[in-house]
Amino acid sequence: MWASHSWSLIHCLSSKPNLKKQVLPRLRIGSGDEVAIGPGKAELLERVLRSGSISEAARQMNMSYMRAWTLIRTMNRCFRKPVVVTTRGGRMGGGGAELTEIGQKVLTLYVRMNAECLSAIRSDWRQLQRLLRA
Amino acid sequence: MWASHSWSLIHCLSSKPNLKKQVLPRLRIGSGDEVAIGPGKAELLERVLRSGSISEAARQMNMSYMRAWTLIRTMNRCFRKPVVVTTRGGRMGGGGAELTEIGQKVLTLYVRMNAECLSAIRSDWRQLQRLLRA
Repeated sequence: MWASHSWSLIHCLSSKPNLKKQVLPRLRIGSGDEVAIGPGKAELLERVLRSGSISEAARQMNMSYMRAWTLIRTMNRCFRKPVVVTTRGGRMGGGGAELTEIGQKVLTLYVRMNAECLSAIRSDWRQLQRLLRA
Repeated sequence: MWASHSWSLIHCLSSKPNLKKQVLPRLRIGSGDEVAIGPGKAELLERVLRSGSISEAARQMNMSYMRAWTLIRTMNRCFRKPVVVTTRGGRMGGGGAELTEIGQKVLTLYVRMNAECLSAIRSDWRQLQRLLRA
């Protein structure tokens, strides 16, 4: 499911420094008092998907393993089923992690919603850009 | 210009606690290394527009006058012309503040872009809601 979307959160976020003027949709999905998923948690999911490892994803995002695990636990609690599960072995040996089916659905929907936002605001964003100092 | 938009950031943000599942677009507009406008700065603009006072807007948002003024200075620097100007007298006496023409345009565009996002993601948001725990 994931592979069908070329738009990537990581690409979007990491291309930040090169853009003088930019707009980032930072959708925040709330569930009760918790943030079920937002830009940070979504990026974490995408990095777990790509690396197959929570510790590697955490390292790439300059956060501790504990912090990454806390974010994942919150997501696992907010959705009907866990979005990430840990596996024995993993790509690098020593235990890995992968997105469940629902986890892949959540990430795909989140990324698509971000892309839909960008597309919907295109015309107003052009107007707003003209109001920004060069 | 403002009055033509019934959708309000303040309403959107303050209705938060009543919703079990919610999505908030939190558009962030970057200009160089700075955030020209995002959810917090936009809410501040809206509250200055409504109250005619930076200190009243700051009070409503539980932030110091200095913090509010710093945010406004950043916005004034990022856009081609200042978005907020201070005035002598003001509604309550003792000096007031108002949005300039460009300030009103910026706020209107920002609010409209948020509304456009919400509208664009409606269908995927329905799908994502079903994946959230009840």
